[in-house]
Formats: sequence, structure tokens, C-alpha cells
Amino acid sequence: MDLLKEKIKTEGEVYAGNILKVDCFLNHQIDCRFLSEVGKEFHRLFKDDGVNKVLTIEASGIAIGAMVAQEFGCPLVFAKKTKTKNIAGDVYTTPVESFTHGTTYDIMVSKRFLGKGDRVLIVDDFLAVGNALNGLIKLVEDSGAELVGCGTVIEKGYQHGGDRLRQQGIKVESLAIVESMNHETGEIVFRD
Amino acid sequence: MDLLKEKIKTEGEVYAGNILKVDCFLNHQIDCRFLSEVGKEFHRLFKDDGVNKVLTIEASGIAIGAMVAQEFGCPLVFAKKTKTKNIAGDVYTTPVESFTHGTTYDIMVSKRFLGKGDRVLIVDDFLAVGNALNGLIKLVEDSGAELVGCGTVIEKGYQHGGDRLRQQGIKVESLAIVESMNHETGEIVFRD
Repeated sequence: MDLLKEKIKTEGEVYAGNILKVDCFLNHQIDCRFLSEVGKEFHRLFKDDGVNKVLTIEASGIAIGAMVAQEFGCPLVFAKKTKTKNIAGDVYTTPVESFTHGTTYDIMVSKRFLGKGDRVLIVDDFLAVGNALNGLIKLVEDSGAELVGCGTVIEKGYQHGGDRLRQQGIKVESLAIVESMNHETGEIVFRD
Repeated sequence: MDLLKEKIKTEGEVYAGNILKVDCFLNHQIDCRFLSEVGKEFHRLFKDDGVNKVLTIEASGIAIGAMVAQEFGCPLVFAKKTKTKNIAGDVYTTPVESFTHGTTYDIMVSKRFLGKGDRVLIVDDFLAVGNALNGLIKLVEDSGAELVGCGTVIEKGYQHGGDRLRQQGIKVESLAIVESMNHETGEIVFRD
């Protein structure tokens, strides 16, 4: 997606430790006009796959998921990272290791909102080693729903999480795949 | 908003402890067609107020905020509840007591995304005692931005957080105000 690559190059910042900061348009401040285009692009990529539910994870996946679900005219479900008083009853749950925070946390989805008959498109902002996506895929499998595929805005190709999922036969579409970054020069190279 | 009141009556569940569960359409599974209407309604209510930024708080405010910001054609900023590696530099921060969880947590917004010249509409899913809104208002004040008003989807009128804000002269618009709930009969009474 050329618009995204352009935004990453002009507005993204590269820091030591493989950190690409895009919090000015994607995951702290959100450019909602741009995000509408992201929703349309994921719809174009998955429109023939019978998607009837979009699944993401709080917090930074939610705005993206909302735009995608709006395009498909289907519900969005977001997995929660903490159990609140307001989730009653049974949940599907699995542990996820956070690359960013260096910790492990549980993600969960109420059994009422995921199950047989659902054809699920998983979306998220970033795909690096793939821990969050693998957790979400596990919840889909546990629920008896069908996984249609995964859509991520930015994939860090050099961490190979996306490649591993594709090797398993899962349809993974990323709107930009970063092949390498240099925090000293700020250079970002995309996969063709 | 009649569509919302109808959805609360047909899809909402009332539990002991003043809990109104609407997680089937608002804050776990999200009905994105309905949420588009919420965005349009907030736009109608605040369209003459010069809004150029929408502010909300993770996680359940984000989808609502995205729809509202889309209508205004302006950025959405969401306050974060935990400090991550990826928020660098200075932040505005304030403590917020959680009514739902019975704990206190810090919320924060990067100073890069809130400041002088911003005319801010704050949106959130629920308004009860008003702790989250008061925290967000504090961040707006600290930043030098101008508060246009607050829009919440469901206000619990009997907890009077909204009334206190209106008494301070703040424009607060809630799409449904619950005046009373009965968890034994399931009855929900709305303010006219």
C-alpha cells in the first residue's frame, strides 16, 4: 500500500532495538482518514473469503479492526488482556508473550462472541515474531470458528513471524513489509 | 438516540452492583454499523463547535473515537493506561480511579499529540461517576488545548458524574441516560 509506505517514510521514526515508531498516525494518535483507506484495502484483499467476523486485540488493533469491520458490515470482537468484572462466564484464553514489554499476559474472548459458523479475519497493527497473532489464531481454533486469514498493517519481515504463518498455509496480508531498518541513518527498506 | 435505547433494552443485561453489560454490541463485540450511527450522532451534536481533535481512553473508547474522528475528518488520540517502551519522551499524566476494577491507574498522552490549538472533543463508552472523563479533562487542561465538550454513549444518570460536569459549564452529551436499573426484573428506565 503506497500511501502507507509513504507515511512510514515521512512520519515514522526508527529507534535502536528494532523499534519503528508510528504513533503519530497508527497507534497513539490515529489518522482516521488514512485508517479508512486501510479498512478499504483489507476489504479488497479478503472480500472473496466470506468474512463474517473481524477479530483483533486491545488496544492498538481496535481502531483498525473497527474500520475493517465497517467495510465488511460485520461485527468486530477484540480480545482483552485483563479479566474485568464485566466479562462474565466462560472465555477462551491463551498466554501471549509480549515482544515490546518482555512479559507474558493472558488474552481472552468471551465464548459468546466466537464460535462455529464464524469466518474470522484477524487484524492487528504490527506483525513481528507473531506472538499476538498466534494467540488470536489459538482462540479461533479453540472456539471452532474458521480462520479466513490475517491482515496486519506493518510487518517486520526480518523477524519472520509472517513467513512462518504463510508456511503453515495461512493467508497473511500485510500492507507494508519492512525488510530492514537502520536507526542511525533512519533508512527503511521495504520488501517488494 | 432511539436506536441505542432499543439496543440497550433488547441486548443489554442488568447485573447486581449497578452493572449494565452491553458487551455484545459496544465494548467487547462491537456492532460497527451501529457504531457508524453513533459517530454520525456525535458529529451532529458537536458539528458547530470547531472540533479538530478527538480524545478517548483505551480500550473501549477507541472504536467509538475512531468513528467520531472519521466523521469530523480529524485525528483521534487515545490516552494509554500503561507506559510502553514505544512512548518516548514527555507525557501528560494523571491518576484515575477505576470504578469497575476498584483500583487506581495512571493515564497518559504524549505531549506531541495534545496542545495549544487543539479543540478537543472527549468521547467514551460509559459515564458513571466521571473519573475517566475527569482524568481526560485534566490532560486537556494541562496541555493548553481547549475542551469543546464530552460525548458518552451511555450515561448512568443516578451516579451523577455527568450532572457535576454540566454544573461546571461543560457541554456533555450522552446518547442514552439510564436513570435507574433493576437487576431482578431487568427493567431499565431512561431519563427523558
